[in-house]
Order: sequence, then structure tokens, then C-alpha cells
Amino acid sequence: MNILVLNGPNLNLLGRREPDVYGSATLADVEALAARVAAELGVHAECRQSNHEGQLVDWIGQAPGRFDGLVINPAAYTHTSVALRDALAAAALPAVEVHLSNVHARESFRHLSLTAPVCVGQIGGFGIRGYEWAMRALVEHIQSRQQKGHSR
Amino acid sequence: MNILVLNGPNLNLLGRREPDVYGSATLADVEALAARVAAELGVHAECRQSNHEGQLVDWIGQAPGRFDGLVINPAAYTHTSVALRDALAAAALPAVEVHLSNVHARESFRHLSLTAPVCVGQIGGFGIRGYEWAMRALVEHIQSRQQKGHSR
Amino acid sequence: MNILVLNGPNLNLLGRREPDVYGSATLADVEALAARVAAELGVHAECRQSNHEGQLVDWIGQAPGRFDGLVINPAAYTHTSVALRDALAAAALPAVEVHLSNVHARESFRHLSLTAPVCVGQIGGFGIRGYEWAMRALVEHIQSRQQKGHSR
Amino acid sequence: MNILVLNGPNLNLLGRREPDVYGSATLADVEALAARVAAELGVHAECRQSNHEGQLVDWIGQAPGRFDGLVINPAAYTHTSVALRDALAAAALPAVEVHLSNVHARESFRHLSLTAPVCVGQIGGFGIRGYEWAMRALVEHIQSRQQKGHSR
Amino acid sequence: MNILVLNGPNLNLLGRREPDVYGSATLADVEALAARVAAELGVHAECRQSNHEGQLVDWIGQAPGRFDGLVINPAAYTHTSVALRDALAAAALPAVEVHLSNVHARESFRHLSLTAPVCVGQIGGFGIRGYEWAMRALVEHIQSRQQKGHSR
Amino acid sequence: MNILVLNGPNLNLLGRREPDVYGSATLADVEALAARVAAELGVHAECRQSNHEGQLVDWIGQAPGRFDGLVINPAAYTHTSVALRDALAAAALPAVEVHLSNVHARESFRHLSLTAPVCVGQIGGFGIRGYEWAMRALVEHIQSRQQKGHSR
Amino acid sequence: MNILVLNGPNLNLLGRREPDVYGSATLADVEALAARVAAELGVHAECRQSNHEGQLVDWIGQAPGRFDGLVINPAAYTHTSVALRDALAAAALPAVEVHLSNVHARESFRHLSLTAPVCVGQIGGFGIRGYEWAMRALVEHIQSRQQKGHSR
Amino acid sequence: MNILVLNGPNLNLLGRREPDVYGSATLADVEALAARVAAELGVHAECRQSNHEGQLVDWIGQAPGRFDGLVINPAAYTHTSVALRDALAAAALPAVEVHLSNVHARESFRHLSLTAPVCVGQIGGFGIRGYEWAMRALVEHIQSRQQKGHSR
Amino acid sequence: MNILVLNGPNLNLLGRREPDVYGSATLADVEALAARVAAELGVHAECRQSNHEGQLVDWIGQAPGRFDGLVINPAAYTHTSVALRDALAAAALPAVEVHLSNVHARESFRHLSLTAPVCVGQIGGFGIRGYEWAMRALVEHIQSRQQKGHSR
Amino acid sequence: MNILVLNGPNLNLLGRREPDVYGSATLADVEALAARVAAELGVHAECRQSNHEGQLVDWIGQAPGRFDGLVINPAAYTHTSVALRDALAAAALPAVEVHLSNVHARESFRHLSLTAPVCVGQIGGFGIRGYEWAMRALVEHIQSRQQKGHSR
Amino acid sequence: MNILVLNGPNLNLLGRREPDVYGSATLADVEALAARVAAELGVHAECRQSNHEGQLVDWIGQAPGRFDGLVINPAAYTHTSVALRDALAAAALPAVEVHLSNVHARESFRHLSLTAPVCVGQIGGFGIRGYEWAMRALVEHIQSRQQKGHSR
Amino acid sequence: MNILVLNGPNLNLLGRREPDVYGSATLADVEALAARVAAELGVHAECRQSNHEGQLVDWIGQAPGRFDGLVINPAAYTHTSVALRDALAAAALPAVEVHLSNVHARESFRHLSLTAPVCVGQIGGFGIRGYEWAMRALVEHIQSRQQKGHSR
Repeated sequence: MNILVLNGPNLNLLGRREPDVYGSATLADVEALAARVAAELGVHAECRQSNHEGQLVDWIGQAPGRFDGLVINPAAYTHTSVALRDALAAAALPAVEVHLSNVHARESFRHLSLTAPVCVGQIGGFGIRGYEWAMRALVEHIQSRQQKGHSR
Repeated sequence: MNILVLNGPNLNLLGRREPDVYGSATLADVEALAARVAAELGVHAECRQSNHEGQLVDWIGQAPGRFDGLVINPAAYTHTSVALRDALAAAALPAVEVHLSNVHARESFRHLSLTAPVCVGQIGGFGIRGYEWAMRALVEHIQSRQQKGHSR
Repeated sequence: MNILVLNGPNLNLLGRREPDVYGSATLADVEALAARVAAELGVHAECRQSNHEGQLVDWIGQAPGRFDGLVINPAAYTHTSVALRDALAAAALPAVEVHLSNVHARESFRHLSLTAPVCVGQIGGFGIRGYEWAMRALVEHIQSRQQKGHSR
Repeated sequence: MNILVLNGPNLNLLGRREPDVYGSATLADVEALAARVAAELGVHAECRQSNHEGQLVDWIGQAPGRFDGLVINPAAYTHTSVALRDALAAAALPAVEVHLSNVHARESFRHLSLTAPVCVGQIGGFGIRGYEWAMRALVEHIQSRQQKGHSR
Repeated sequence: MNILVLNGPNLNLLGRREPDVYGSATLADVEALAARVAAELGVHAECRQSNHEGQLVDWIGQAPGRFDGLVINPAAYTHTSVALRDALAAAALPAVEVHLSNVHARESFRHLSLTAPVCVGQIGGFGIRGYEWAMRALVEHIQSRQQKGHSR
Repeated sequence: MNILVLNGPNLNLLGRREPDVYGSATLADVEALAARVAAELGVHAECRQSNHEGQLVDWIGQAPGRFDGLVINPAAYTHTSVALRDALAAAALPAVEVHLSNVHARESFRHLSLTAPVCVGQIGGFGIRGYEWAMRALVEHIQSRQQKGHSR
Repeated sequence: MNILVLNGPNLNLLGRREPDVYGSATLADVEALAARVAAELGVHAECRQSNHEGQLVDWIGQAPGRFDGLVINPAAYTHTSVALRDALAAAALPAVEVHLSNVHARESFRHLSLTAPVCVGQIGGFGIRGYEWAMRALVEHIQSRQQKGHSR
Repeated sequence: MNILVLNGPNLNLLGRREPDVYGSATLADVEALAARVAAELGVHAECRQSNHEGQLVDWIGQAPGRFDGLVINPAAYTHTSVALRDALAAAALPAVEVHLSNVHARESFRHLSLTAPVCVGQIGGFGIRGYEWAMRALVEHIQSRQQKGHSR
Repeated sequence: MNILVLNGPNLNLLGRREPDVYGSATLADVEALAARVAAELGVHAECRQSNHEGQLVDWIGQAPGRFDGLVINPAAYTHTSVALRDALAAAALPAVEVHLSNVHARESFRHLSLTAPVCVGQIGGFGIRGYEWAMRALVEHIQSRQQKGHSR
Repeated sequence: MNILVLNGPNLNLLGRREPDVYGSATLADVEALAARVAAELGVHAECRQSNHEGQLVDWIGQAPGRFDGLVINPAAYTHTSVALRDALAAAALPAVEVHLSNVHARESFRHLSLTAPVCVGQIGGFGIRGYEWAMRALVEHIQSRQQKGHSR
Repeated sequence: MNILVLNGPNLNLLGRREPDVYGSATLADVEALAARVAAELGVHAECRQSNHEGQLVDWIGQAPGRFDGLVINPAAYTHTSVALRDALAAAALPAVEVHLSNVHARESFRHLSLTAPVCVGQIGGFGIRGYEWAMRALVEHIQSRQQKGHSR
Repeated sequence: MNILVLNGPNLNLLGRREPDVYGSATLADVEALAARVAAELGVHAECRQSNHEGQLVDWIGQAPGRFDGLVINPAAYTHTSVALRDALAAAALPAVEVHLSNVHARESFRHLSLTAPVCVGQIGGFGIRGYEWAMRALVEHIQSRQQKGHSR
């Protein structure tokens, strides 16, 4: 099983960026965590980050056939990108949305997620540990779908 | 460590209630899952359910001193209860919000959560497995706070 | 055939409460009317009233298997209770919504009904006689469904 | 006692029009039902239908002195016609609003009724049987007003 | 100079219709007043009334070449008819809008006028005397345009 | 009979101010017109202008006992001054609102009038001739009230 | 194959009406164009125009059995007529919506189309040539449905 | 004279609950203050607190005949409870609304009060001393009504 | 201790102004009441009234160093004056907002207070007696701040 | 004559992407259709697709001097991209907007088009055949502008 | 060249007023800075401040003929004064709007400027140095207009 | 001191793009102006432009350590990019926002700036001269921060 872990804009700055909001862990820490969890789960995980909306759309469009599901932190694009939402709907792969901070306790323009309705579920507010829960939830979701022998 | 797992209105009907939305697991299954996860984590978990907003407010008000944190599925009260929000803020205990379904993919009046801003994080869309992630996330959150030797 | 006639908050005050809006009939008059109509229709009707949102949710949750349908006047909870709406959806019993007054001719916050979309229909503005039309409509609806041999 | 039963736009298509929403009964069935109920109630009922907002306004304007009350299904004009509302207010005859479908469970632009505030009450969601409840409610309303010896 | 005085829906009921709002004068009184004022001003005035939006649109569309200007009381269509607004804009004749009552002191849906932006001005709140001011204002407006030798 | 003609902010600039919107007549022209119309009507008219909201409120507050009614062009304060509205309501004198331009055809923040609901009526869009119609309408309104022997 | 080409309010004035917005072609030009295109496509096209909302609703209601599809320019009723929308939904014939001007570049109340959701598609901004594209699109749509042997 | 002092949800936690917002006084302090003020005023005051909306509605419904007026701090229910508003209107007893904190300086969902329109007045922002002003204001209000010999 | 009691627009008309809303007491009665309460409290109170927003802003700006706190009834400016709010914030003196009537039970544009967030608290609905509660509350607030030895 | 046919985000997935919404034709089919239509019209057409908003902005900015007009399907960027709108306005080339699906019958956030006001017209709901109508409409528009010898 | 530098309400308190928001410079410092910059630019600058909206409107109305342009800090009136906007439009002098603080980072009611659309440009967030940029920008703007030999 | 001058989408077209809105100066002119001003101020300025939101986010993310502050004209992304706002907040460098045109006098969707709250200030409406004021303001801001020896 192959999992694509996508990180959106400004997450390359993790650790340096407003540490009181996002914590001191870096993007490398997220990648190490993803590798460790993937090993425990017996799956393969590939991590990519881009600040470019179009690059993220490209990667999601290329994912079917290469990956079995996505863990995605769309960051700022969560709230503004219909293109990302359409890409996720087009890919028709199960996706779990992750947020480092509790977006519901921040500015009101962060309360609406355009991508949430086309994801399996959301996990937010637990810092980088949320990526672990998201990966575990995604793998279970895929396995349970495989056992039922049908796609979403 | 003691954890209070609170379930709000209509969750006593789980399994019988719109199974295509909420799945076929019952409230007893949630309680069994909570017991199993608590055992694995070496903590104590107590499950309570009520359809009464006031009852839920009572329990949250009595929690400090008896419990170290809450996992709460406020169900319909998520979207209408300022009282529940005030109770969670007053209790000042870490709380994790769980939803069985992906509320963001349902009616628009379910997109706003009054309780989310006073919780540590949210987990939604994974059926009853969300309770497991929520309990694990809560326990880690409490342990990490204890190591840092300070309250929220 | 068993029918549950539910009355929501402040309806225990009927007759005493703003008689120019709600008329001079009392809750006892409603119950007498329900009994008479039930006798005419050859069904059994049970009347309950509560000011507690949670109590009403409890009763609706316990109704399947005991009752074949509901006549409900959710009163003030019509406009604020997602929990009542969820309970009605969960119970999956046919329900008819009654209002004593013409809610559309009153304050604007009374124009929206959260419960209406999960009911079979609404009857409002006819004082306590509305309960009779509601009971007759409910019984016909149930009989017609039985003849078609399928649930909603 | 004379009753005017008015049907608004597209109701001439009843039975042919989206039968899953409006049922298979036709406008002729409505008229037969109205005749039967009128006979039972000992009153005279006259049924008219028009797709023209102006025609409906004309008929309502001419009603005082000829009719004692109206049963009206304004259909699509329910939501857009201030003229119909003004006509009902000008006529100052008791009117009962009927809808075949449960408009509250359909598109949001059908949730607001411009005519409801100037009617005695509303009945909706019961198919053509709603006309029977409406006629009975109207006749009782008129009789009760006559007994009290005063106009609304 | 020829003036078309148009009256919209329900104005045929003037005098009978909610006299506390609209006064006791009748449509015949309006027509007599218009005839008298026209005589004083040395112009010809023709009065028409219809409850039909389409009829009013027809008349306005046929006005250019036959009339030099309009006094119009669009009544309920003031607030809902884009068609009337388009007709007035298409006719490109000067028009003065009249209202019997002070619409700004009534329901909020009467505060917005769709026709006002394509009229020369508005006069409201003075009962049927408003027609006299409107006719005088229209005639002056037309004469002043003729003297300037240009169309609006 | 004494009439107070009040002009609000920037009307001292009339003739100089955006002549394509407000015309070339000056405030002196308005005062001359008011004097001429007053003479024709056999009443006394006093004209005052201020850019100060408080000064206008003062004058309206002092008007009862000195004046029998007001013609007021509140200009920009039409849309923002609750104080002016309260002053007019407190004075309890009949007032007619005048606007030089067709405010409904300008920016949307000019479509709402806070003062309109406490005035007898509005006249707008006819340049300074609107003052004449307003004065005539006011005098008629006062005379008709005197004949009926009752205050508003 | 029979096609009904419907034109709504004020389109009888085409060519005379605000030529900078709507162009100099007349309704007769539209009918000539429709005849020519119909001949090219080997179908029969009938053109009708009315300023009356009810007349348009009548024609649409009578269309099934006589026509295979509609090209409709609802003009001002696009934005206000729920009745027209209901008529189109009731007729269940494929319809293509045409607009002469680019409604999205005009007043904001012209940006919303009530009829669009029940049409196959929209074409706007190309003057009377839009009727040609609309007729070609409609014929293709009907032919492709016939080949697939199923209705929408 | 008997006064009912009602405290709503979470006020049982006073002193423990967010002391920077609500102060360090406890519910017992409120009750002591109420007893002292009642003694000074020569009236009887009874204090009750509940987290249950329905319980508060019950108590208000039972108040007429037992109490002459209410001091009520509806807390979170201020902003969400139509039931409480209806109960106060039904009871038809004078009520004074109290808030410990300045709700206008907090979250925007606390700026609207559903109960305020059916109370005599509001006092907010003075901590528990607000109860004293409220009791004094209520007693004066009742005495002044008694002197005028009429109910509100 | 010196207290400034400020009254806003139209309060000079008190007693004469809509007595059913504002009562029959006059501004002189308010000043006598303020003098009496000040004497009881052993403080000095100075009363000023103006209809001019700018005058009120001037006085508030000059208050620091001369007064220890304000009681203010901003009347109509409550709802429209950002300048008054800024003046209160700039002065940084404790202020208590008073309203004679229950503004929450009146027009919706009176439900929002721009000044409330920069005041200590609000008292409304008790007629001129509200000034007494406000003065007592202000003096207590200032004394308690002095005892704590810190400014707000 | 050179035409640029631009396709926005996710259109590279055409045929694979939600075929029930977007049909089974692929981007290659769109390109073949564009080539065929261009040949028929005797013009040159170049097709480009990108998921990157910035790439689309680049291409449009480089179009003047190389292309005479654009056919553009902005896909998801239709609803969110002010940059695309500004690019089209800056290029000042005639552009026709195409949509495969009937966007008005989908989610409400797809009802608003930011690009429509700066395009000549819109065609939507006809699948890939819409590109043919759009190309024909664009070429006619350019030819008609050339004949008139003036730019838009 | 003569420049009028206008300062609105509460700016007389500069230096004393919320120094963390507005800085420690005083109005005298602003005036000294304006004098120095004027000298450098070889123009004359006159500074005036008022808390009175009407006074500011007076000054702007008197400016044409005496001044060639304005630098204005409307302070709180930025967000509420249509009168100030009308005065600036009437004066038809170039005006530059200045704000000391970054109003976009403060309360949302400070995000909208009524005066900005009738000014040449805005400068905000740089404390009193903003006046220097504003004066330089204004002088350049006037000189460039003079060179082009035309007014705005 | 190093300054990064960033220009957003479509600014590469400056001079060619809607010259009546944006003027005839080109991006090269902006760069020459920036070089000249930098030389005068004794700092180094680097200019970059991109139409790609992601490229701008990349550059801002790489700025700390290389640059001391930013002058940014986000153009269309001002109104839609949460990503740019997050990048500016993450970089934690002082930034000044520039706009060539007076955005407040254009379409309403240009009135809101997502980036403004995380900038030091805004300058708009002065064409390319705004870049000079912005650079001077930025350098002064940085120098004044350095003198105070603390970061923002």
C-alpha cells in the first residue's frame, strides 16, 4: 500500500513559523514521523510539500494508480482552493485532512474548509502527532474498504 | 489518569439511527471500544450519555478533580449550545471533540461548531474508530502537559 | 395503531399563557380532544408534555416499536433544536408538526422550522383544532403507507 | 356559505408534473375532492386555477360579497408575489394556504412564504388531502367568527 | 402633450382596501383628479389599471409615440418586477413613481423599489394628492427637456 | 401657519456642488422659491441650513410651539442619523422629506432612509421644485388634520 | 422534431430597446434567424413572445407532446420567476437558456438565474447569434438522448 | 412581596469558573447578597440555579401566584433559548435581566439577547453587585405598577 | 470624587418626547436625582447635555484630570458614533452606559451598541432611576479599583 | 486569425474525472474537436492546459500580439481567481467562457463567476460541444469587430 | 500652493490617547511636521482639528478657492460619515486620506472607509510620518494635474 | 540593509495593461525608481515579479536572513490569498503594502485586503510613486525598530 503525504503552502517553514501557533517541530520531523509510522503499519509513504496550488493539483491528479490514498494538510489553500477540492474529487482516492493547529479557535476565515467535504475525515489541533492518527485512520479505512470489496 | 467520555443527544440510538450515516455500531460498542483502548493506555475511562443539555453541563461542571480530561461527542448540541461551550471553558480540562460522520459534508448548519474553539482538537468522519484516536490524542496531550509541568 | 402526541415547552401553561395569541383552551382540553379524535379514528393516542428538550428527545428515541407515528408541537424548540430534528430523523416514524398560532405572522425567528424538513407535513394557525387535523392526517398517512407495503 | 378554492401556476399539470414530488392525483381529483367535502360540510365550493398572477389577483379582488373565505394554493407565487399578498389583505376574507408538498424540505427559496402572514394558517405536505383539512379548517374558522359576531 | 397614468395591482380596490392604510378615495376619484389636473395643465391624461404584470409591460412598451411621459403607481410590483423596470428603461419615456402610503414606514420588503432607479423621481405618502404633484412634476420635466432640446 | 424648511449638510454649496447631480440652483434660489410658495399658500416659511447634525437636532427640538410642520432635506444625514430620526419623532410635528436627486438611482448606501419612517411622505428627484410640492403637501396635510380635529 | 422558441418580457421591443445593450436586431430578425437555422437542421421551429409570466407558463405547460424541446430567453423573468422554473421542471422537456447580453457584466440582481438549474445549459452575451448556438445545442442534445434511448 | 432569583447554566461554578471573566465571588455569595438586599427592602427572595433549560422553564411557569417578579441571569441561554423567552412572556411577571460580565465586550454571539425584549430592563458588567441593582430596580418597578393599579 | 453625567441628543426634550416610551420625568428631574444621589454618596456630580456629537466628544476628551468617571446616556449616538467610542477609549476613565427605555425591545437598529464594549457595564429599561443605579455602580467600581491600587 | 484555447485545473483528467458530471470525452478529444472546428473556420487554434493559476495568467499576459482571441474554461479558478480576471482585462482580447457542466445546477459556490464580467459571453452545460459553439462565437465576434473597424 | 490639513475627532488627544495604538507624538508634533514639510516643498499648509462632523464639513465646503488640496485624517468619521464624503465630492479638490494606525489590523468596523472612494489615495499605518508622505503625494498630484492642464 | 520589492500577478504587463487605471509606466520603470530610491537611502533593493502565488510564497519564505523588509504589491492576490498572508506572518519581516490604483474606488471585491493586517501599513492610489513612499516608510520603520533594539 502506497500513501501520499501532501503538505501545502508555508509548511516548509515549520519550526521557524510562528512557533506559538505551529510548534517547534520541522517539516523534516513530519517526514521522519511519517516514515516511522509507515514502517509500523507496513506501508510505503511518500512526503511532498509545495507552496504552489497548481503543483499540489498536479500531484493529486497523478496519484491514482500510484497511490492508494492521501494524507493532506492543505494549509492556507484549505479555505480558498476550489481547484484542490476538484482535484481530490477527481482523483477519487480516500483522503484524510490534517491541521496542526485548532483552526476553529483562530480567525473566522479559517473555520470553513472547502476540501473537507471530499475527504474521509479531519484531524486537527494535535500538532504533528495528527499526521500519525491520520495515517493510521487512512490505512484502516483503505483496508476496511478492501475487505468489503468495493470502492467508495 | 481518569477520562470522561461524554456522548450527547440521540447517541443512545446508535446502530438503529440512520445506519447509512452513522454506521451499525451501537453505543455499547463505543463503550467496549473505550474500555479496550483505556486498558491499552493504562488509564481509566468512564462513559456517559444523555439527551439532556443540562445533564451534560452538570457532568462537565463536576468533572474537575474527578477527571483529567474529556472526550466529547456533543452531537446536535455541537451546533446550538453556548451552555456546553461555557461549561467546557469553565471546567478548564483538556477536551477532544469527536464526530462519527463527516459533518462538513452534511447540511450547512452542521458546519459550525460552537464547542470546537474550547477543545484541544477535533476528529470526525471515521465512525466509532474516531473515539480511539480521540482517547489516544487526549492521553498524549495530558502527558505532554504534565511533562511540561504547566496547565493550559 | 398507537399515536404519541408530544407537546413542547410552555404548553403546560396553555389557557393561562398570552390568551390573545394561544387561545383559552388548556392542555387538558388538548388531551380531551386527542382522546375523542383517537376514539373516532379507532386508534390509541398518548399525550405527553415537557419543558425539557432532553425529555422530548428521550421520548422520541423510545417511540419506535411502541408507537406508529407522532403528532408534535415542538413550540419554542421548533426554531432552535437540532437535537429534536435528529431524534425525529433517527426514530424514522412519520410525524406531523402542529402549531397553535400562525407562526409565519409572528417574529421572524419563528419563521424557520428546524423540525419541519423531517416531518410529513405541518398544520398551523388553527388553535387546538389543528391537533385534530394532524391526527387525521397522520393516521391516513400511516394507513396509506401500510397499503403500499413500504416504509418511508 | 361560499368558498373559493384557488390554485396557482402549474397546478393544471397536476398528475403529470414531477409525480414523485406532487403525487399522481390530478386537478380534476382536487376538484372532485373539494366538491365532496363541500357537500359533507353543507357549503358551496368553487374551484379556479390560473397560471397568471394578475388573474389570481383579479379573482381575489372580486371575492368579497361573493365568497366567505378562500382556500388557496399559491404554488410558485407563494414565494415571489407581493401582489397576491396585498390582494389577500385587501379582500380581508379568511384564507387558508395549502401546499401539496412539504415545502420546508425542498429548496431554500421555497421556505419563505409571502402570503402566509395574511392567511389564517397553513397546511402542507399531505398531498391533495391537505385541501380537505384546509376546507374544514376554513369553515370552522368562519363559523367560530360568526358566533363571536365580529370580523378578524 | 399626452400622459399615461398607470395603476398597478389591487388599486382597482381603492377605497375598499385597508382604508386605514390607503384612505377612502377610490380609483374613480384618482381618475377624476387626473382629469382635473390635466385640464389645468392643458395636457391630455389617460388612466389605466391592471392587476397583470404583463399587461402593464405591454402598455409601457406601446407608450412611445403615443405618450410623452408616465405617472406610475406600480403598487406591489414596485418591489418584485424586473420586467416593469426593463419596460420603463426600454420605453425611455420620463416616468414619475407615486405611492399612496409612506412605504418606508411599512414592512421592510416595501423599502426597496426596483422601478425607482429608472424613474425621474418619487412621491409617496400623501394619498391620492400625490398623483397631482406627480403630474405637475412630470409636465414640468418634459417642458424643461423640450426647451433644452435634448432627450434624457 | 408657520413652516420650518430645514436643509442639511453641504446644501450651502448648492449650485457649486456636482451640478450634474444637484442642478445649478443655489440655496438662495431654494429660499426664494420657499418664500414665493409660502406667499401663495398664505403661510409663513423660515429656511435654515446647517452642516451640523447637532444643530439640526436642536432646531427640530425647539420647533414645537413655534412651527406647525417641517419640510426637511436631511441630505447625507438621511442615511446615518438616528439622532435626527429621534428628534423628528420627539417633536411630533408633521414633516415632509425632500431630496433634490433621485437617491434610488445612486449608490446603494443612499437607498435606505432612517428618517423616512417618521415623516408623512417623501418627494425626490425633481430638483428644487420638490420643495414646492413638499410645502403644498405639508400645508394640505396640516389643514386636513385640523379639520379632522385630531393630531397624528 | 419540433422546437419551441420562447421570448419573454420586453423582447417585442428588440431593436428599439436600449440598442447599446441589446443591439439593433428586431424580434422579426430573431424569428427569421430561427427559421433559417431550423431549415438547415431539418427541424421545425415555432417562435412565440409574451410579456405575461402566466402566458409563458401556459405555453410551457402545453408543450409536452407538441414539442421536443425549448429554446427560452426568459428575460427579466430569469431572475424573479419561480413559476417559470416550476413550469420547465414540470414539462420535463430539454430547454436551453439564451441571453442577448452578458448578464454577468450588468446589475447584480441579474447575476442569479432561477431558471438555469432546470435547463440543459446557458448561452449568453452573443446577441441574437446566441439563438443559433442554442438551437444547434438543443437539437444535438435531443438527438444524443434519442440515441442513448433514455430521457434525462 | 416575593422575588425569584434565577441563575442559569454554569453559574453553580461561580468563583471557580474563569475568574478573570466572572470574578472570584461564588454562587453562595450571590445568595447571601440577595438575602441581605431582600432584608433591607423588606421582601422575600428565593434563589435557584439550574443548568437545565427545561428546569428553568418549569420554574418560570410555576412562578405566577407564588412570586411577584424575577431577577434572572440566563447565562448562556440568553443567546439561544426561545423557550426561556416564551416562558417569561407566558408568566407575564416583571423580570430584570442581569449579567456578571459586560457581554457586549465579549464574543459577538453574546451580543444578542433573546430574553431582553420580554424583560423590564438589563443590568450588566458589574459582577455580583448587579444583582443588588436588579433587585432594587425590580421592587421599585413592582411598587410603581401597584400604585398605578395596572399590570404591564 | 468627581463624576460627569453626560446626556446625548434629544434628552433635553425629556418629558415632552414620546412620553409612552421615555416617561414623564424631565432632564431637570434627572439632574435633581443626580444631585441627590451624589450627596448621598459623598461625591460631586456635574450634568451636561448636548445634541452635538462633537460637543460630547470634546467633553469626554477634557474629562481626564477633572473627573474620575462618567455616567453616559449616549441616546441615538449609541448606535452610530464611532467617535464617541473612540473618545471613551481615549479618555480611559471608567464609564457606565444608561438607557431610559429597554432598547432591546425596540427597533433592531437599537440593539447594537458601539459604546458598550468600552464601558464598564450597562443599565437599561428603568427610566430615570437607571441613573441612580449607574452612579452607585460607578462609584463602587472606582473605589474598588482604588483599593486594588491599579487602573483598568 | 489565431485563437488560444485555454483549459484550467483538473481538465487534464477529463474522461477519468467524475464522468457522470463531466462526460467521458478526454482533453485529447477537446483538442481534436478544436482542430477540426478551426479547420472548418479557416483559423488557427492552439490548445493549452495547466493546473497552475500563475501559468494561465502568464499565457494570457503573453497572448496579445500572438492571438486574436481566447476560448477559456477556467474550471475551478472561475470562482476564486481575481488574478485570472485581471489578466483577461489586461490582455484586452475578446474571450469566451466555456463550462462543460451546467454550473448553475451544482454547489452554490459555483454559481458566481469572477471571470464572466470580462468575457464576451458564456456557454455552459453542453459538454465538450460547448467548445465548438464558443469558437464559432468568438470568430464571429472578432470578424464583426474588424468590420466595424474598432476595438471593444 | 495652499494645503489644508484636516484632523478629525479625538486627534486633539494625540499622545495622551492609547499610546500603544497611536504613538506618543502629539497634535502639535503633527503641526510642526506639516510646517517643516510644507517649507521643504515650497507650499503653504494650514492645520485644523475638530471633533465636530459639521465643523469639518463647513471647512471642506469653504476650501475651494482658498486651498488647492487636502490632507485629511477623518478618524472615526472615516467609517460613519456620508456627510464628509459628500463634502469632499462637492469641494472637488484632490484629497489624500491618512491614518496613524493600520486600520485594517483593528476592529472590522474600521475596515470600511466611506471617504476613500472620493480621495486620490490612502496612506496608513506609519504613525505621524504618514502625514509627510501624504503631503508629498498631494503636491505631486496637483503639480502633475497642472502640467496636464485639466482638473480631475 | 536589504529590501525585497515584490510585484504580484499581471504587473509584468504594466504600461500595456488598462493604462487609464494603472498608468503608462512599466515594470522596468518601477525597478528603475526602486534602484534610484535605494541609492538615495543607502540600502540595497531587489525587485522580483511573478504571476504565481506559490512563487511569491516561496520568495517570502526565503526572505528572512537575506532581507530586512519587504515592499509588496500583491495585486489580485491581495483579495484572495490566505497563503500570502500566512507567508508574511511566518516570515515575520516588516512589510509595506502598495497599490497603484485607489482600490477603494473600484469593485467591492477589491475593498478587502487579506494581507493588510499582517503588514505595517498601506499606501495606495498614487501610481508608481507609491513605491517610493513605501520604501522610505519601510526603511524608517526598520531603523526605528533597530534603535529601540527590539523586533516587532
